[in-house]
Amino acid sequence: MLASFDPVFPNPSLGGQTRRVRLSVEPSTNPDDYEFEHTIRVRFVETDGMNVVHHSNFLAYFEETRVAYLQHIGHPYTAWRDAGLESPVLESFVSYRRPLEFDDVMKVHLRLAAVTRATFQMAYLITADDSEAGTSVRATGVTVHGCTSGGRPTRLPAWLAELGRNLA
Amino acid sequence: MLASFDPVFPNPSLGGQTRRVRLSVEPSTNPDDYEFEHTIRVRFVETDGMNVVHHSNFLAYFEETRVAYLQHIGHPYTAWRDAGLESPVLESFVSYRRPLEFDDVMKVHLRLAAVTRATFQMAYLITADDSEAGTSVRATGVTVHGCTSGGRPTRLPAWLAELGRNLA
Amino acid sequence: MLASFDPVFPNPSLGGQTRRVRLSVEPSTNPDDYEFEHTIRVRFVETDGMNVVHHSNFLAYFEETRVAYLQHIGHPYTAWRDAGLESPVLESFVSYRRPLEFDDVMKVHLRLAAVTRATFQMAYLITADDSEAGTSVRATGVTVHGCTSGGRPTRLPAWLAELGRNLA
Amino acid sequence: MLASFDPVFPNPSLGGQTRRVRLSVEPSTNPDDYEFEHTIRVRFVETDGMNVVHHSNFLAYFEETRVAYLQHIGHPYTAWRDAGLESPVLESFVSYRRPLEFDDVMKVHLRLAAVTRATFQMAYLITADDSEAGTSVRATGVTVHGCTSGGRPTRLPAWLAELGRNLA
Repeated sequence: MLASFDPVFPNPSLGGQTRRVRLSVEPSTNPDDYEFEHTIRVRFVETDGMNVVHHSNFLAYFEETRVAYLQHIGHPYTAWRDAGLESPVLESFVSYRRPLEFDDVMKVHLRLAAVTRATFQMAYLITADDSEAGTSVRATGVTVHGCTSGGRPTRLPAWLAELGRNLA
Repeated sequence: MLASFDPVFPNPSLGGQTRRVRLSVEPSTNPDDYEFEHTIRVRFVETDGMNVVHHSNFLAYFEETRVAYLQHIGHPYTAWRDAGLESPVLESFVSYRRPLEFDDVMKVHLRLAAVTRATFQMAYLITADDSEAGTSVRATGVTVHGCTSGGRPTRLPAWLAELGRNLA
Repeated sequence: MLASFDPVFPNPSLGGQTRRVRLSVEPSTNPDDYEFEHTIRVRFVETDGMNVVHHSNFLAYFEETRVAYLQHIGHPYTAWRDAGLESPVLESFVSYRRPLEFDDVMKVHLRLAAVTRATFQMAYLITADDSEAGTSVRATGVTVHGCTSGGRPTRLPAWLAELGRNLA
Repeated sequence: MLASFDPVFPNPSLGGQTRRVRLSVEPSTNPDDYEFEHTIRVRFVETDGMNVVHHSNFLAYFEETRVAYLQHIGHPYTAWRDAGLESPVLESFVSYRRPLEFDDVMKVHLRLAAVTRATFQMAYLITADDSEAGTSVRATGVTVHGCTSGGRPTRLPAWLAELGRNLA
């Protein structure tokens, strides 16, 4: 779970301005490195013409798990929204390791992986059983989130900043 | 368009095995750095409860553009499939810079950015006009692809390897 | 384009109350019966594990065409929304006649088919070319819409009521 | 659950040929009229710019429930597919009664409603709780299915025909 992406992107097209990619987490492939687990069964609508889950749906699986995690820790996303907050995705990364098929039952493992003043990162690991190979890794990923109020960036909720301090 | 992500992920959970993240491209925010452009109008179904395009749909916009690009260069994806080839996504990265809204008309800029023996990478830049700010960057991204035949990894088509040699 | 569904549903579970199905239009399979035409190319993400377009996407094709039609007649849906109006779907019907495949280019034909004080109906016909059979019918459908302001039913816009009078 | 749609569509555009709409079931709004129940929680990705579930997703909810039902009765759809059978949707009808919102927990009630030699119909009722109104009806719907083998229409499985005889 160490920071592994080179975080500095010198970006000439922005007039020499240095831009940092916020994503700095490497998602582990070991379920024990994750604090939360959520089960999802693949819908037929999520498959594509290759007869496997279309790659865009993994972001929806991460999102469903994120919502379940926030409810689990007592800060459901509906409460964020009732308080006028949104948590937009700023960056996403997915590594597709092995396909998921229709009706597969996956476990999505989640870990709050990094928190800064304005952003937080979630890491994900998807595993599923296979009649031949046993449990195997299907995908890993990271999402980076900000926090907005009325469409404008705002500070993270205090409880989330606190969780971040405990990560260090 | 230089390789910018640190490509080496020492991965203890794989028994000390080193795993390389294949994604190595930084997508430029300058449209001039891209070789192909494709126009897409945002559908209402693609918006979410934040009243902006849901982040998972950017992967579908990249895909539609990739398909248009392959047709443009004379190697339509339907021909790949007729030849028994698929081109699964191995990794994806998206940086969401500014939201897209319903009915926005975006330009998706694409560049074939890297080719190895077994994989290729596409870089993307999405721009759209805004009545106030003029044209602005909405997102950048990268997808890494392999090539499979009958579900097994296979060599890239010769024309694609050739395109890769011209990138160097 | 005659009203063909029996509109009266005696509904015992509602305490004997009679409920009317609003949908009353039979969509023609003749393109000449439609006033507007919109072209859409099938995305790969829209296919499913049967290697054809998943049936839920036809509603998105109808919607995209409806939006294009409203713009065409000078009442873009963005203007509805700027005026605080929404046009929720109350009922939908689709007849799937022949599959659409990846990269197929379809024509979606649309006709404003019926207007009452509080609802309007759109009829749709999807056709596409086939190398063997020429142009063929892929689907027909109907959507029934209401009009809401702040989430509450409201009268249709005057121009739409006027269009309805011209249908009679 | 009586047949309520007028089944005869004289279709002049088909040269006077009469075409039957296969859909003949009125879905009841009483949960007691259904034999199976499945619970689904609304994902954020399923909401749209009206901040409610997009109407196309109801077909996915019906599908997920259909798959759960088939597993429940010992004929999982994966077994159909292993046997070379598919069950394409021929027609769909949805009546959207009251919106579903993000994180709502719905119950999808299903009933096998009609079986002919070549087709079968499923009826659906979606209910969900509301803090103010208690349980309320959100949608009803019907899907009509055929059975294909290698893309060609084929007879329904014997067990399904048998279930149909028990409906009469």
